[in-house]
Amino acid sequence: MFIARVTGSVVSTQKVQSMTGHKLLVVEPYRLEEKGREALVTTGRTFIAVDTLGSGEGDFVLITQGSSARLTPETKTLPIDAVIIGIVDQVHIDKLNVYSRD
Amino acid sequence: MFIARVTGSVVSTQKVQSMTGHKLLVVEPYRLEEKGREALVTTGRTFIAVDTLGSGEGDFVLITQGSSARLTPETKTLPIDAVIIGIVDQVHIDKLNVYSRD
Amino acid sequence: MFIARVTGSVVSTQKVQSMTGHKLLVVEPYRLEEKGREALVTTGRTFIAVDTLGSGEGDFVLITQGSSARLTPETKTLPIDAVIIGIVDQVHIDKLNVYSRD
Amino acid sequence: MFIARVTGSVVSTQKVQSMTGHKLLVVEPYRLEEKGREALVTTGRTFIAVDTLGSGEGDFVLITQGSSARLTPETKTLPIDAVIIGIVDQVHIDKLNVYSRD
Amino acid sequence: MFIARVTGSVVSTQKVQSMTGHKLLVVEPYRLEEKGREALVTTGRTFIAVDTLGSGEGDFVLITQGSSARLTPETKTLPIDAVIIGIVDQVHIDKLNVYSRD
Repeated sequence: MFIARVTGSVVSTQKVQSMTGHKLLVVEPYRLEEKGREALVTTGRTFIAVDTLGSGEGDFVLITQGSSARLTPETKTLPIDAVIIGIVDQVHIDKLNVYSRD
Repeated sequence: MFIARVTGSVVSTQKVQSMTGHKLLVVEPYRLEEKGREALVTTGRTFIAVDTLGSGEGDFVLITQGSSARLTPETKTLPIDAVIIGIVDQVHIDKLNVYSRD
Repeated sequence: MFIARVTGSVVSTQKVQSMTGHKLLVVEPYRLEEKGREALVTTGRTFIAVDTLGSGEGDFVLITQGSSARLTPETKTLPIDAVIIGIVDQVHIDKLNVYSRD
Repeated sequence: MFIARVTGSVVSTQKVQSMTGHKLLVVEPYRLEEKGREALVTTGRTFIAVDTLGSGEGDFVLITQGSSARLTPETKTLPIDAVIIGIVDQVHIDKLNVYSRD
Repeated sequence: MFIARVTGSVVSTQKVQSMTGHKLLVVEPYRLEEKGREALVTTGRTFIAVDTLGSGEGDFVLITQGSSARLTPETKTLPIDAVIIGIVDQVHIDKLNVYSRD
């Protein structure tokens, strides 16, 4: 999995029918800043993931990719390759708290 | 999933038999422009995806990769790893409308 | 899927038994040249794919990766992650013919 | 698989229900240092993996990605794409011991 | 698949139980040298793959990634994402012999 920040959303009317009613969020993968190792920084990449947890803009989330994106009750039969499996409260790296939700 | 722009198409006569009759489109993945964060820009990569929605050149679409590309009614048994699951109407990032179809 | 040029072949005698008799081709993924957008250029990467269509050196082909590489009649039970699903006749991008087989 | 160093952990309260009780570790993939070829160095990337082996910070571990992350007794039904399958004791490259746990 | 050189091995005592007795080799993916196109060169990346063929250090091998790594008799139920499916004898590119085992 990887950590990503929710930055926006996508509207799509014409789509595969099973996708109706599923929230599509824009997420940006983050990684540890390499020099200082004290904060998470964006990788600059842009992905779209299905959300079933009520994630909102600014939230840091955990993204699962590939066939395992279909291993949640709400996404079992969907043609998707990325899903949010958790909203991140805290990330600790090298004994430091590099992210805290509050 | 990722956002891509449909830029062209591929013609292939000699192919795996189950692929007969399926439209193959050229798509270019897009990402948020890193400095201004106000527009989507191409990643410069070139992929081929199956289309079942009537997508046309210039459309922005949502692409699903991997085994989940087979999770639509029309692609269930195809040897494909990328399918268009939606035509994008709007993309909102950082509260900005960074793409609108009209 | 992606477009690749067939550049060579691999000989392997000692292999997983089910692979006996399957043709292994060297393929180089191609992408649209970024500045002029008028031709396909190599990405410089080197992959190996199973061929069931009689593809030859110099041919441009469509490659499917991952579990879907097993979705052709000849590859159903093979331990492979890449297969040629079509020989490319033409590629059109931005209304231009950027590749033609003849 | 790839070799990674465990660098931290993630706390997530709001998550897909099946994920309750599973330990989420931050891991950094490592590769052989290219010039000297005598040590493993970080790739600078940040991944999250499920741990079922009691791995701790500083440990080097083996990470399996994709659907195979569900092929352990504890992860069979989880929506995950990365799992720790072993704690690394030693790595030998070019006849050199490039990593030893003790 | 891709071509890789076997460069070493990994020792792991504490591991998922089904992995007991399986040989874990360090492999480096190779690609065609871009300028001269006459030899294979390392990509500098480091992967770990399961070996069932008796591959040794220095051998060039074919690696299959993803779920297909479980499509050999010995790896059917293993939590692995990379397996050696063949030892390479020869690689021909652009009519040149760019690698020969002997």
